[in-house]
Amino acid sequence: MVDKFSPWEIEGDLNYAKLIKDFGIEPMKVLPEVFQEEVLFRRGVVFGNRDFGRILTAVKEKKKFVMMTGLMPTGRFHIGHMLLLKQVIFWQKMGAKIYIAVADIEAYNARGQSFVESKKIARDYLLDYDALGLDLNKCEIYFQSERGIDAKKSNAYYRLQNQLAGHVTFNEFKGAYGEVTPGKMLAALLQGSDMLHPQLKEFEGSCPVLIPVGIDQDPHIRLTRDITKRVKEYKFIPISSTYHLFMPGLTGGKMSASDANSHIAMTDTAAQIKKKIGSAFSGGQETVEEHRKLGGNPDVDVAFQYLKFFFEEDDQKLAEVESAYRSGEMLSGEVKKMLIEKVQVFLADHQEKRTKAEKVVDKFLYKVKN
Amino acid sequence: MVDKFSPWEIEGDLNYAKLIKDFGIEPMKVLPEVFQEEVLFRRGVVFGNRDFGRILTAVKEKKKFVMMTGLMPTGRFHIGHMLLLKQVIFWQKMGAKIYIAVADIEAYNARGQSFVESKKIARDYLLDYDALGLDLNKCEIYFQSERGIDAKKSNAYYRLQNQLAGHVTFNEFKGAYGEVTPGKMLAALLQGSDMLHPQLKEFEGSCPVLIPVGIDQDPHIRLTRDITKRVKEYKFIPISSTYHLFMPGLTGGKMSASDANSHIAMTDTAAQIKKKIGSAFSGGQETVEEHRKLGGNPDVDVAFQYLKFFFEEDDQKLAEVESAYRSGEMLSGEVKKMLIEKVQVFLADHQEKRTKAEKVVDKFLYKVKN
Repeated sequence: MVDKFSPWEIEGDLNYAKLIKDFGIEPMKVLPEVFQEEVLFRRGVVFGNRDFGRILTAVKEKKKFVMMTGLMPTGRFHIGHMLLLKQVIFWQKMGAKIYIAVADIEAYNARGQSFVESKKIARDYLLDYDALGLDLNKCEIYFQSERGIDAKKSNAYYRLQNQLAGHVTFNEFKGAYGEVTPGKMLAALLQGSDMLHPQLKEFEGSCPVLIPVGIDQDPHIRLTRDITKRVKEYKFIPISSTYHLFMPGLTGGKMSASDANSHIAMTDTAAQIKKKIGSAFSGGQETVEEHRKLGGNPDVDVAFQYLKFFFEEDDQKLAEVESAYRSGEMLSGEVKKMLIEKVQVFLADHQEKRTKAEKVVDKFLYKVKN
Repeated sequence: MVDKFSPWEIEGDLNYAKLIKDFGIEPMKVLPEVFQEEVLFRRGVVFGNRDFGRILTAVKEKKKFVMMTGLMPTGRFHIGHMLLLKQVIFWQKMGAKIYIAVADIEAYNARGQSFVESKKIARDYLLDYDALGLDLNKCEIYFQSERGIDAKKSNAYYRLQNQLAGHVTFNEFKGAYGEVTPGKMLAALLQGSDMLHPQLKEFEGSCPVLIPVGIDQDPHIRLTRDITKRVKEYKFIPISSTYHLFMPGLTGGKMSASDANSHIAMTDTAAQIKKKIGSAFSGGQETVEEHRKLGGNPDVDVAFQYLKFFFEEDDQKLAEVESAYRSGEMLSGEVKKMLIEKVQVFLADHQEKRTKAEKVVDKFLYKVKN
């Protein structure tokens, strides 16, 4: 972990150090060399974990392990989602079996969205997954509403959802999820089965499972870890988790799928990219004179942050930009221009790959269903 | 419906007339001739219904319909269970497709009973089902924890459970089930799917479904009927139901599976039968003299009630016993003796059939699982 990207210095609103201390999340230790290949690990964007040691052991000893995540079929894939997807792709390279649950039951119960609509949106996400380099055919991607084509697996997955209910109280749900409805409770229990079922004998059997999440998801992780100990008829290994920083939205606030101005969509045109980044929240001063004198603040500058999260892979160059920006030598507009060019090149290429992905994705989805 | 067996005259504690009035349950109308074959219909033990008309139409027009019920895998089958099972067998003869859900998820969540234990107990029940004349191989009997061997069916069944949760509130649950835990809520939702899933396209498709229950189960029926209207993506026909009287326990109170003295078990010996019925609650007077003078009360006499529910199929003979007992001509001991002999003969035969049933049941259970 590179100290100057220490997470709690970057985001003003969240006291990551306190979160780590209060909830027993561990900071990332020195990672094996191979983790240096992924900037999200190298730069401390993935900043904390629970029980990560057994994942490192599995990688080292080439033992079976699972990386599990969810796909919420609402909105469209945008660059904020890349934060998770780059980790998924990295873990696939590290030898993890990738499990992805399309949360169509949650979308149905939380917002009345039909399964047909969820399938359409999920397809769109998968185009981006494939284009970014995830090998779908090596993944276990499934819809919560239809778990696979094997009845033994299907039964085992939903049976576990039902069993978990017997080991949790309403108050625990409220603690983790706030006020719940029956619909949300079922979705939460199914999420519990999503996280634990890879270890059932009908799937991978007992093995370490890693779930990479944002810190806001930790209550769900903790609740699932608590319940795990109570379901004694299974020999579940408690789930491991990693925690990543939030990526700021273009306007400096939260990045939101439903607010197109807060994010860059994977289908944005070069002109849209230029316009959106051009008006993004910056860490610069009011006037050029002041900026030259006082310097900019890369820690809150959205353009710099995006370079750091994804778009400037060269640490040396990134450090130079940071230093020049902080000293006032480099202007906000110059950092933005740098990002605009990189994003334009990246997305032009991505959009081409995305079109080519259709055939792969449709074939994959057909297989999942039949 | 024969008036002298009018239910609200029979059971002192329950005001069936009021129940019918308050909850919109309809009394049974004049039934087609074929229903006279089953004493439970002929004698008004099945006394009320909801939407029974469409079941009669299906019978008359030989259209597809389903009769659905549950098997709670606790205790052992006893003569109280025959009340429901005789109806099931009757409906099978009437052309209904029989669905039976073994509520092993409910047993797990309500009392922590393992699925293995539930399976063992269910097997025991099925021995009695087969011995009594139910054709298991024409039934759709399944365990809630493993819905069949076809993934499309399995997915559809559990998907429906999850969807139902999106159309109900916690308060509605409390109204129907009293205080609920997450485990009980999941069991209730699965019961909802039990009642509705026969109509899914993966099963029978839209068709009338009859659920015969005791009056105490009506809140569940009503809740399911309410939810049905809200799940608009399916074209469910609201479930129909019939209501039967409670059969009194041997001691005059409630018959309980966990209290061996309150019921006659299907495995009871001739001596046990004699002893249990001999000390059963009677409607006779304190002394023979008083009995001769005042007469007995067949409406509360357990032995007479058992003759009426099952063991004296001949209406003429039953009426004679009733009249003689009411007048004081017949003593309680004589009614009991009559019942003891009939039950001994019946159970000796049943126990023989039960032993022979093992092969059928084990073959059936193997098929259900594989």
